[in-house]
Amino acid sequence: MTSRFEDHLSALADAVEARLAVVLADAAGPGESRRPDRLTAAMRHAVLGGGKRLRPFLVAATAELHGGGDGDPLAVAAAVECLHCYSLVHDDLPSMDDDDLRRGRPTVHRAFDEATAILAGDGLQTLAFDLLADPATHPDAAVRIALVADLAKASGPGGMVGGQMLDLSAEGRFGDGRPAALGDGEIRRLQAMKTGALIRAACTMGARVAGAGPAEVARMARYGDIVGLAFQLADDLLDVTGDAATVGKATAKDAAAGKGTLVSLNGIAAVRAELDALVAEAGTVLAPYGARAETLIAAARFVADRER
Amino acid sequence: MTSRFEDHLSALADAVEARLAVVLADAAGPGESRRPDRLTAAMRHAVLGGGKRLRPFLVAATAELHGGGDGDPLAVAAAVECLHCYSLVHDDLPSMDDDDLRRGRPTVHRAFDEATAILAGDGLQTLAFDLLADPATHPDAAVRIALVADLAKASGPGGMVGGQMLDLSAEGRFGDGRPAALGDGEIRRLQAMKTGALIRAACTMGARVAGAGPAEVARMARYGDIVGLAFQLADDLLDVTGDAATVGKATAKDAAAGKGTLVSLNGIAAVRAELDALVAEAGTVLAPYGARAETLIAAARFVADRER
Repeated sequence: MTSRFEDHLSALADAVEARLAVVLADAAGPGESRRPDRLTAAMRHAVLGGGKRLRPFLVAATAELHGGGDGDPLAVAAAVECLHCYSLVHDDLPSMDDDDLRRGRPTVHRAFDEATAILAGDGLQTLAFDLLADPATHPDAAVRIALVADLAKASGPGGMVGGQMLDLSAEGRFGDGRPAALGDGEIRRLQAMKTGALIRAACTMGARVAGAGPAEVARMARYGDIVGLAFQLADDLLDVTGDAATVGKATAKDAAAGKGTLVSLNGIAAVRAELDALVAEAGTVLAPYGARAETLIAAARFVADRER
Repeated sequence: MTSRFEDHLSALADAVEARLAVVLADAAGPGESRRPDRLTAAMRHAVLGGGKRLRPFLVAATAELHGGGDGDPLAVAAAVECLHCYSLVHDDLPSMDDDDLRRGRPTVHRAFDEATAILAGDGLQTLAFDLLADPATHPDAAVRIALVADLAKASGPGGMVGGQMLDLSAEGRFGDGRPAALGDGEIRRLQAMKTGALIRAACTMGARVAGAGPAEVARMARYGDIVGLAFQLADDLLDVTGDAATVGKATAKDAAAGKGTLVSLNGIAAVRAELDALVAEAGTVLAPYGARAETLIAAARFVADRER
């Protein structure tokens, strides 16, 4: 039996899937040539047909909390998901994590080939910014450019891409080949960059497209940081306690890579306690919104408690 | 002896180099964490210390033609060059063109490793959009978002990335492994996407950052299409007539890859005649600007006649 929150998440995932299918159609948009079939097929493989769509959900829910406006939250949600999926395609590459399986299906470089996977990822990143620049996303250019800035900061060298670099370094991929023994602070910094930054951006971008002001955007950034950390802690727990069939991707990878996580460093019990504290903190941050924040509080709880 | 145009090009290249060195510093910008040293080093290797900086020159020259305004053309030039350099890093990868040499130096994946090269390219793409979103680039959000849209359309699946996909397909990389015998129109479409689109965007973006209106932007798009085609024709000629030491990268690659070009299809003489016609056409398109367009006409001639 699914919870009311999971029904909500699933309904949004369907709406995002439909929008992504349109965004990833093979027709040429204005100002561009027709996209090559193979590239379109690879991008569609990377994006369509799977995933909880957590980041799009956060965009939609933070937009709803701030009440509508003239923007199109689903376009922003699609852009964030394209960016996220690009990062998955590249992280899965043979020279990176060398994964064969993603969301229970072959990774893009396995279903196609390595060059196509690199280009599909590249194109998905571009498409994300293209979507945000579209006047249909929000009539106000100032809002659109703020969305671009949020996404670029979150996903660039000082964000997601930098976090992946730190992650590979920590595995001992460069230098003497031995995994680094990262401390608590170093692991948190790595994870805040690699996964936290984009989750935070999903929350601030949802607020922005709904016309939220700076104070509300800052509050959504704090909420996003909490959810991002909870997401990573739960992911690290799953890597230890989950099985591949349920999770939909390989597990016990961190231990195999000799990678330190907050679970291996602090223990399962401490991490579970931190997750409880994070859910409570989310409630505090969202308190000014009263009952309207129910969905976002449920989202934080879902992320902390998720089993796959 | 260099021409007056080449002195101009060289002076702009120095200014762009200085700006890129600042953009690619290791300090954290606002809203981001500190960039990992290895990633910064790889991005700097990819971007600094070489290249004619043709695209940045086109940004600066088209901006100058439209007369100043409150924008910072050098920031736009740096963004376009970051985007261009990302494409070179990824195109050079073992699974793509597998090049060891670029601008007379080891390619990023040779100087570092494949994973680092992929991430450096990814980060350079993000950085390009980040730069365009910065209020220091232009105070008007509408101008900044138009710059983002131009760059995204030019470099995405319906532009540069799509062109690289078509190029790999034409080499017979997928399917039966035999190179495709592309016709004149197919080669032009491929090249317009792979190299032409970004050159056109450099021209429209320079006009936009200087406050040009839609008619002027459209005229710069036409000029950019001419320069882009001339650039590719000259490049194809060099691949046949140049030597690696002068050109700074491997030559005779097209023939080795069994790749059809307009040179192999139409012959050297016909391509040289087309280049002359393109230079004349550039003069016609720029005629409304009178003597002020001298630099851009010289740029078209330089691109058509270049020997490396």
